[in-house]
Amino acid sequence: MSGNTFGKLFCVTSFGESHGPAIGCVVDGCPPGLELSEADIQPELDRRKPGTSRYVTQRKESDTVRILSGVFEGRSTGTPIALLIENTDQRSYDYDKIKQTFRPNHADYAYMQKYGLRDHRGGGRSSARETAVRVAAGAVARKYLRDRVGIEIRACVTQVGPLRLDTVDWAAVNSNPFFVADPSRVAELEALIDRMRSEGDSVGACVEVQARGLPPGLGEPVFDRLDADIAHALMSINAVKGVEIGDGMAVAGMRGTEHRDEMTPQGFASNHSGGTAGGISTGQDLVCRVAIKPTSSITTPGRSIDQDGQAVDMRTTGRHDPCVGIRAVPIVEAMLALVLIDQLLRHRAQCGEVESAVPRIPGSIE
Amino acid sequence: MSGNTFGKLFCVTSFGESHGPAIGCVVDGCPPGLELSEADIQPELDRRKPGTSRYVTQRKESDTVRILSGVFEGRSTGTPIALLIENTDQRSYDYDKIKQTFRPNHADYAYMQKYGLRDHRGGGRSSARETAVRVAAGAVARKYLRDRVGIEIRACVTQVGPLRLDTVDWAAVNSNPFFVADPSRVAELEALIDRMRSEGDSVGACVEVQARGLPPGLGEPVFDRLDADIAHALMSINAVKGVEIGDGMAVAGMRGTEHRDEMTPQGFASNHSGGTAGGISTGQDLVCRVAIKPTSSITTPGRSIDQDGQAVDMRTTGRHDPCVGIRAVPIVEAMLALVLIDQLLRHRAQCGEVESAVPRIPGSIE
Amino acid sequence: MSGNTFGKLFCVTSFGESHGPAIGCVVDGCPPGLELSEADIQPELDRRKPGTSRYVTQRKESDTVRILSGVFEGRSTGTPIALLIENTDQRSYDYDKIKQTFRPNHADYAYMQKYGLRDHRGGGRSSARETAVRVAAGAVARKYLRDRVGIEIRACVTQVGPLRLDTVDWAAVNSNPFFVADPSRVAELEALIDRMRSEGDSVGACVEVQARGLPPGLGEPVFDRLDADIAHALMSINAVKGVEIGDGMAVAGMRGTEHRDEMTPQGFASNHSGGTAGGISTGQDLVCRVAIKPTSSITTPGRSIDQDGQAVDMRTTGRHDPCVGIRAVPIVEAMLALVLIDQLLRHRAQCGEVESAVPRIPGSIE
Amino acid sequence: MSGNTFGKLFCVTSFGESHGPAIGCVVDGCPPGLELSEADIQPELDRRKPGTSRYVTQRKESDTVRILSGVFEGRSTGTPIALLIENTDQRSYDYDKIKQTFRPNHADYAYMQKYGLRDHRGGGRSSARETAVRVAAGAVARKYLRDRVGIEIRACVTQVGPLRLDTVDWAAVNSNPFFVADPSRVAELEALIDRMRSEGDSVGACVEVQARGLPPGLGEPVFDRLDADIAHALMSINAVKGVEIGDGMAVAGMRGTEHRDEMTPQGFASNHSGGTAGGISTGQDLVCRVAIKPTSSITTPGRSIDQDGQAVDMRTTGRHDPCVGIRAVPIVEAMLALVLIDQLLRHRAQCGEVESAVPRIPGSIE
Repeated sequence: MSGNTFGKLFCVTSFGESHGPAIGCVVDGCPPGLELSEADIQPELDRRKPGTSRYVTQRKESDTVRILSGVFEGRSTGTPIALLIENTDQRSYDYDKIKQTFRPNHADYAYMQKYGLRDHRGGGRSSARETAVRVAAGAVARKYLRDRVGIEIRACVTQVGPLRLDTVDWAAVNSNPFFVADPSRVAELEALIDRMRSEGDSVGACVEVQARGLPPGLGEPVFDRLDADIAHALMSINAVKGVEIGDGMAVAGMRGTEHRDEMTPQGFASNHSGGTAGGISTGQDLVCRVAIKPTSSITTPGRSIDQDGQAVDMRTTGRHDPCVGIRAVPIVEAMLALVLIDQLLRHRAQCGEVESAVPRIPGSIE
Repeated sequence: MSGNTFGKLFCVTSFGESHGPAIGCVVDGCPPGLELSEADIQPELDRRKPGTSRYVTQRKESDTVRILSGVFEGRSTGTPIALLIENTDQRSYDYDKIKQTFRPNHADYAYMQKYGLRDHRGGGRSSARETAVRVAAGAVARKYLRDRVGIEIRACVTQVGPLRLDTVDWAAVNSNPFFVADPSRVAELEALIDRMRSEGDSVGACVEVQARGLPPGLGEPVFDRLDADIAHALMSINAVKGVEIGDGMAVAGMRGTEHRDEMTPQGFASNHSGGTAGGISTGQDLVCRVAIKPTSSITTPGRSIDQDGQAVDMRTTGRHDPCVGIRAVPIVEAMLALVLIDQLLRHRAQCGEVESAVPRIPGSIE
Repeated sequence: MSGNTFGKLFCVTSFGESHGPAIGCVVDGCPPGLELSEADIQPELDRRKPGTSRYVTQRKESDTVRILSGVFEGRSTGTPIALLIENTDQRSYDYDKIKQTFRPNHADYAYMQKYGLRDHRGGGRSSARETAVRVAAGAVARKYLRDRVGIEIRACVTQVGPLRLDTVDWAAVNSNPFFVADPSRVAELEALIDRMRSEGDSVGACVEVQARGLPPGLGEPVFDRLDADIAHALMSINAVKGVEIGDGMAVAGMRGTEHRDEMTPQGFASNHSGGTAGGISTGQDLVCRVAIKPTSSITTPGRSIDQDGQAVDMRTTGRHDPCVGIRAVPIVEAMLALVLIDQLLRHRAQCGEVESAVPRIPGSIE
Repeated sequence: MSGNTFGKLFCVTSFGESHGPAIGCVVDGCPPGLELSEADIQPELDRRKPGTSRYVTQRKESDTVRILSGVFEGRSTGTPIALLIENTDQRSYDYDKIKQTFRPNHADYAYMQKYGLRDHRGGGRSSARETAVRVAAGAVARKYLRDRVGIEIRACVTQVGPLRLDTVDWAAVNSNPFFVADPSRVAELEALIDRMRSEGDSVGACVEVQARGLPPGLGEPVFDRLDADIAHALMSINAVKGVEIGDGMAVAGMRGTEHRDEMTPQGFASNHSGGTAGGISTGQDLVCRVAIKPTSSITTPGRSIDQDGQAVDMRTTGRHDPCVGIRAVPIVEAMLALVLIDQLLRHRAQCGEVESAVPRIPGSIE
């Protein structure tokens, strides 16, 4: 029940600070017999890791993951899987100057009020570095979902500041530094990020994530509905300020005749709901979006206070992303994977014996 | 860990179907000594209950709550508080015709796929009737938050279909049937709802909720951040498809210099973040919004299937709200209250002894 | 996670005080499709209920259970099953005299210290009356275990004060007022209980419980081992002071050659371990015992204090059992059932797909 | 909610196999500001570690603990504390011969049936080596309980096979290799253990544990009573088969007049209940006992089966303890500490504001 554990049956317990010796997690509840090695996890970490292009932070972390337990002779044993990532590029001296001051819109002030003390180095526990652990744990979940259930998860950046991007070509997502599905816009994005960096500013972003191949039936009404668990998971990612399922916030302006997803024997006629009804998956694609705020660590000075409550002017230097949303793609995918495997196991526990008496229809009209 | 329990320390376990004998819940974890009686709960239920105006469903439920345990001589004893609401107006025969068919965009099909059988009467467990229980439990939480901590929660409707409403006058919210804070727009709203009803259609809505008087420090990073728990709570409400904290989805288009909330010794200079940083309350007002989809139960026929997978045309009659979002105001308030009391108790458990070494600044510049 | 919820997947949330309007519980997580009605539960309650013989308390409670939700057309729907038992024989005036004083060895003083106030009527929440709810919830679990898995649970009294009883005839357990499996000793037991009542004293008891037909594999090491969960469940019953699995406390004096349960292709050669190894069921019979302290409510005066800390002499009158252990048999069975169904569902969630590559041997040599 | 996490607010998530690269845990929920370093933990590990005398296993493990997170500048920060112990003396080849066979009374067969595969090296996850992690986590809990609350925990061996030992001199416990409080019996114990080793046999043991300085009020009725949580914790220790609180199993033979703990303004007159009433601490000393079965790994051959179900004769060689109970003392202490800190935090969450209106009496007559 601790705040650093995610999931009720597939439980991920995360630990580690940005500038401590290591970060990592324990994954408890993974079904036994899953083929698993570091090679299944490392590629996901490599997608998230810093320093891969000049559009993201230049911190150099190898983010090499090591499995400490729970895997024997290449397969999960059903016992806890501990994953460890050692921190290697810790330039803590960068942070000495913020020891006594609170960066605006960071967690500094809130952590200090809550705990009475804080590890100020790089944000400590509140650092986005913690999300590497989510990606690692998510890779285990994704392996299971893909191999055993046939569920595929994919995400891409659909907005960067003023630029809205279409999902033209999913295959292109991993081959451009912005994780967008519209490679024709890459030059525009490069220009925007370069401009932000030169202006000492940053921009927000939007990421869309989808899961395909879901069976109907996942979700535990009334409080642990599938969409509620997704909202929890996605809003728990650093800097996320909004979560949408299906048509999302736009439903407020819609009519019932427009929004409802009619059903036919050939499949669902539309997917405005984004794959759930009553908090339970319908077999349609899951479609969710998150909005990620602009990086707070910018070089344009801002008003803040120090630990004595005195006014200071803050200018955050160091190695920061002009748009943290870009690197969020693998994190968002990972969190969705963690929700889905957890709900899958919960569903199996209670309803594993159910043989549906009614026919399933395709997720969309065939 | 069940799907019908909300909260980890202030735990609400909900039960009941729309057309069963009763709905209710058990509230476990309420601190002892709180003055409490049905009179603290009933007014909240009355705000949500159906049949109060011609703009909402005409089902007549008295929604009378009874405390079965946990209160002795007018005060909570620290033992579980059971709340019971008997169902009185159950016209189950209205639903016989949907016994064999799935209403589009309802939970019918998903429940059937998950459980292999369903209580089809009025949606059974998936009925919005279940939210009465949330309002009742939330009333207990609100009492505690108000009496003991000084936290006030309030919500209003800020959009109904095409109409966007300002928060001009919070005092007006409970004195118009649309729970809007701009009473000058009531005539427009009446016309819109009347039109929807006559056209056999419905509209979505947006509700904004705020909490004032929060201490800094609430929230349990990294997964049970305050905003993540709020997202979970609000997305668990029937028909909600999007949740925003602070600037919400709009942050995707913002710049860092624009979004960050600067701090001064006199208080925070803005509240774009909506009251949290790093998943912890800052002492600013909490500001959240939810989008609620248009009612799926409309009289305009739609394509659907029956339990044999055959195509049918559905026309949902019965007594339904043309805009379910209107009655969501007390529900949204209740869910926020449940999150806050739970996080308050969790914070007290771990950090109750903390004496902050740093000064607190006001939530906004004074 | 509340103290009044038992189980992680088959969750029972209990409420109610001895002299409030009702006691009851919510059972969340029951698999759907189970045939269930009040008739499956009432007989178990009738075994526990007071007033059935002159050897137990003369309080007259009908203990009539009512299902409020989660069952539709005779089958569980997968949604929460609420069970309600109204209190009918509440002679609260019996308790006025203990309003200001603490009965020795009762929960009075401890509740007062914990909560700062208490419902003194009949012990309030600490009353053994609360166990009726466990029996009701356990009946649902037993129905599932018996119908779907073939697990049978049975218990009997094996000691009453100085009298140790053999398990000669299990069929006799429910046809004598002492729930013993050795009907030849009933006269002795009658004499003992009569003597206790006349002497204003009480005696302790020991109950043995068994489960047969268990599959191997139940239990979640390392902390939620099957035996650990059983210990938790049984020690949570009022007045239990010791729990044993298999040879129990006696293992301290045994040798390895004597205690180990050898395995043969024809089955296990012995069952000193009581059905578990490494915290996981082996397929042998589960065998557990609990010791229940003598009733604290006796008419022989004892020293105590009142709410002002002053010395008083207490003599507990009212309608009490001279040996609470006697009525514990259905409670112990119920708690074991709750553990087993919970572990069964947990096992199914993680390992439901496992096809064992190794042969199973019988629980005992055939 | 995973089986490898203990506690609800002070949560310990354990991982690691006997012969994997490392074992360890994550401690989440520790209050911030606690002075903590490896030096607080290592001495407890040294008490448990193997190879310290010829009366325990000769495996040589340094059991050196490393804090990976959650501590900054010598104090806990409120974030998860990860503890890592690398395995150094892994002679896995010792275990090749048991790869295909199940050792009698070990977890081998049960793990195989549950998970479909197993890490056979040294018992893998079921190895007693896992308990080192409990001792490490328990050391953090004990530090808090001692420094902040004044609770002291101590345990000693009170029985080794046929030898029953008195608690004559608690100060002697850590200065003899048997952790007994009666140093005059050490020669007898040496002879017994030597004889067991030469006879290829083993003996069981009994350990008593006490906590002093407890405030009244700890425990969460009705299911998470203090005694129930203790039973869960202690029965979760490898090889424990019985748990007693206070007079334990003996209460079955006692009378109410004999067992009840009378109260006087000067304190409790006796402590038959072992420190709890109604599942809540009374302020008396907590007194509990566990019985630990004789080591199953003995050199006297026994009947077993192999993975094909064929009969085999097993003779377990390797480096084993003739009496595992001896090394259990720090483990039992650790588990009790984990229960107490968890209950303390839970109590603080719900009842932290309670100001008792009634006087506290001393735990025993003064």
